[in-house]
Amino acid sequence: MALKIEVITIGDEILSGNIVDTNFAWIGDQLWSRGYDLFWHTTVADDSERIREALLFAAQRSQVVLVTGGLGPTTDDITLRSAAEAFGVAYEHSETAFHIVKRFFEKTGREMSPNNRLQAFLPQGGEVMENDVGTAPGCHFHFQKTDFFFMPGVPQEMKPQVQNTVIPFLQKQSPSQFCYRFFRCYGLPEAQFDQKLRQVEALQKIPGLRLAYRVSFPEIFIKISSNEPGQAEARVVQAAQIIQEQIGAYIYAEGDNPIEKVVGQLLRERKQTLALAESCTGGFVSDKITDVSGSSEYFERGIVTYSNRSKIELLGVSEELIAKHGAVSAEVALAMAAGIQKVSGTDYGIGITGIAGPTGATADKPLGTVHIALAYPGGVKERKFQFFRDRHWFKVFTTHAALHILRRKILGLGKD
Amino acid sequence: MALKIEVITIGDEILSGNIVDTNFAWIGDQLWSRGYDLFWHTTVADDSERIREALLFAAQRSQVVLVTGGLGPTTDDITLRSAAEAFGVAYEHSETAFHIVKRFFEKTGREMSPNNRLQAFLPQGGEVMENDVGTAPGCHFHFQKTDFFFMPGVPQEMKPQVQNTVIPFLQKQSPSQFCYRFFRCYGLPEAQFDQKLRQVEALQKIPGLRLAYRVSFPEIFIKISSNEPGQAEARVVQAAQIIQEQIGAYIYAEGDNPIEKVVGQLLRERKQTLALAESCTGGFVSDKITDVSGSSEYFERGIVTYSNRSKIELLGVSEELIAKHGAVSAEVALAMAAGIQKVSGTDYGIGITGIAGPTGATADKPLGTVHIALAYPGGVKERKFQFFRDRHWFKVFTTHAALHILRRKILGLGKD
Repeated sequence: MALKIEVITIGDEILSGNIVDTNFAWIGDQLWSRGYDLFWHTTVADDSERIREALLFAAQRSQVVLVTGGLGPTTDDITLRSAAEAFGVAYEHSETAFHIVKRFFEKTGREMSPNNRLQAFLPQGGEVMENDVGTAPGCHFHFQKTDFFFMPGVPQEMKPQVQNTVIPFLQKQSPSQFCYRFFRCYGLPEAQFDQKLRQVEALQKIPGLRLAYRVSFPEIFIKISSNEPGQAEARVVQAAQIIQEQIGAYIYAEGDNPIEKVVGQLLRERKQTLALAESCTGGFVSDKITDVSGSSEYFERGIVTYSNRSKIELLGVSEELIAKHGAVSAEVALAMAAGIQKVSGTDYGIGITGIAGPTGATADKPLGTVHIALAYPGGVKERKFQFFRDRHWFKVFTTHAALHILRRKILGLGKD
Repeated sequence: MALKIEVITIGDEILSGNIVDTNFAWIGDQLWSRGYDLFWHTTVADDSERIREALLFAAQRSQVVLVTGGLGPTTDDITLRSAAEAFGVAYEHSETAFHIVKRFFEKTGREMSPNNRLQAFLPQGGEVMENDVGTAPGCHFHFQKTDFFFMPGVPQEMKPQVQNTVIPFLQKQSPSQFCYRFFRCYGLPEAQFDQKLRQVEALQKIPGLRLAYRVSFPEIFIKISSNEPGQAEARVVQAAQIIQEQIGAYIYAEGDNPIEKVVGQLLRERKQTLALAESCTGGFVSDKITDVSGSSEYFERGIVTYSNRSKIELLGVSEELIAKHGAVSAEVALAMAAGIQKVSGTDYGIGITGIAGPTGATADKPLGTVHIALAYPGGVKERKFQFFRDRHWFKVFTTHAALHILRRKILGLGKD
């Protein structure tokens, strides 16, 4: 029988839309990835009556409740006091909690304010949860049949408490030999991956296999997991093999390896180098490439040639070529790619030119037209795409297309 | 008496952390900005029992309930069927709803699947809500003392329904002469703005003034509003004046005008131009600048000089200067700014060099050291900063610092 687990988020700033509640998504993902399901989530304001109501509802229906927010030093932070009222116990000073608060101030050399002393108050009988990175100790409280875990709303304080206290607790309550894999795919929409995989009977038949999609445009991530007792790893290995057979051509990495890291790793391994000539993406491709630590080993330079003059001066694109075909053309993209490869002396050169909009479109070059060219050792190639939603998404889609073209060329994967 | 309004989000993909629920934050912000408060939010899975439970709880405590998700054409989409069960009415075909579904397919030239016909089913007595941009009509249902608005989870379909149906409904129920302003600030942390404004008695005394902070590192947005009958505008004008007096030096814009747009507007008005030479920010500044439509009018080029060679070749920075001071130095930043200004022939040139980490730091140049130089008509200046959290945040903080330095120089605001 699966554990019933829910989350309560406390905070006016969440309800008024001033902050997006990414804590909750992170917790959901952490639990899912280990075979546990969240079945309910509530957000309430920093209001004692609401907090008590939410806690007591949760106690009726859930075995484990993760509560985030309202443990800070300000007068709005009333979560634990409200909890003590809801649970009918005293709200009292804890020496262990006070030690954690004090230790934080000693470590950081900051001065403790009288308000911070309140952070050492807990519902009587509560167990203190460690906090190495902030002032708010967490609190584990067992009420009737339910275990409550109260944690700070600050993500970097909450996350270690979930990982070091809550998850070990869940694993003790409901042990699972959990196995999990995460595939990063590019090239088809979610619905088409789903359709392809649904048709595979062998995959549908794997007992207890959990499969989910996460969309991060234009990429689709496929998560598979199993907590089949004694069989989890075998199930996941079997499923992974089927998935590779069916959609392997679209999988470019596993786990925490975005395309810019994958490409960087390929270049590093081959001791090859890259330079970029971007127009309509305005530096977005360079930005992605340099998000990877150590990218200076293979990224030589990037040029954002927003004017025709800069294309001519910096890349050696001829004025006649631009006049003849227009700045947004296959010819100019190819000249940009070859030009940046030549002037920078790198193995690969990428040239991108297009119409990011919302202005600049013509009848034969509609909004979202983009030419991506790649100069590689021994040649140069070009592809035309049509991407449009808005400027931001245009940049995102174009950048992914360019990096995937580069990856396939480095790996000699032929036509894309 | 304020309306009691809550939101219910329906969807497994939210509970498993596969999608961050940004709909909810958007709704919270829309309501807050018009003087309405959300007081409760629930997320439940695509499970009929949970959905019915959530709806009935909501009916007990709230007057208006916004429900998002589960109106699609798949078998998981059971929101309206579950609602009909919860409300004890039939779940039946609606001609009006069917018309909306059909019209969408006719307009887009796509073929309607049998599943899409199900999207025309509503709880009996429900009122259809328009949907111009997708297949799912929404549904307004009045149950006992509560008005439920069922809307699709797809943001671009949900948003017009909130704006065109829900908000007018709220304004009819609880009319408010609402007035609202939004200040974009840079240069101090939230706590310091809060402290400064709390001390101002005149501001605290304005009846019914609502003041909130939204943090978007490194910027702080201050939202003020009032729904004081007959006085809303006067209250907000009075508050805005006080805020301008107290912290005007930190306010760079109002409303939906990020710094890259503000700077672009200033350049455009003056018919001035800009070019960038970035090292550690890797194209992030160019990317921001070119996020603004029309930026090609004032943005001439950007160069990402990740190698020393590219600094020397493209910006004319001397090899000796780099050897003497190191690539990360005030001297090199100044030479980059002057170099890019010269080669591109622009009015302004920005040069940025620093240590984005996690490697590359030394004892006298710790992680996060960054030099930002600005060449302007008649001179060149430089400032050193220390920004560190990780590569991404380093880029974000550095980019904001650079754009704010540029803004102050264009406006002649003197030392920053």
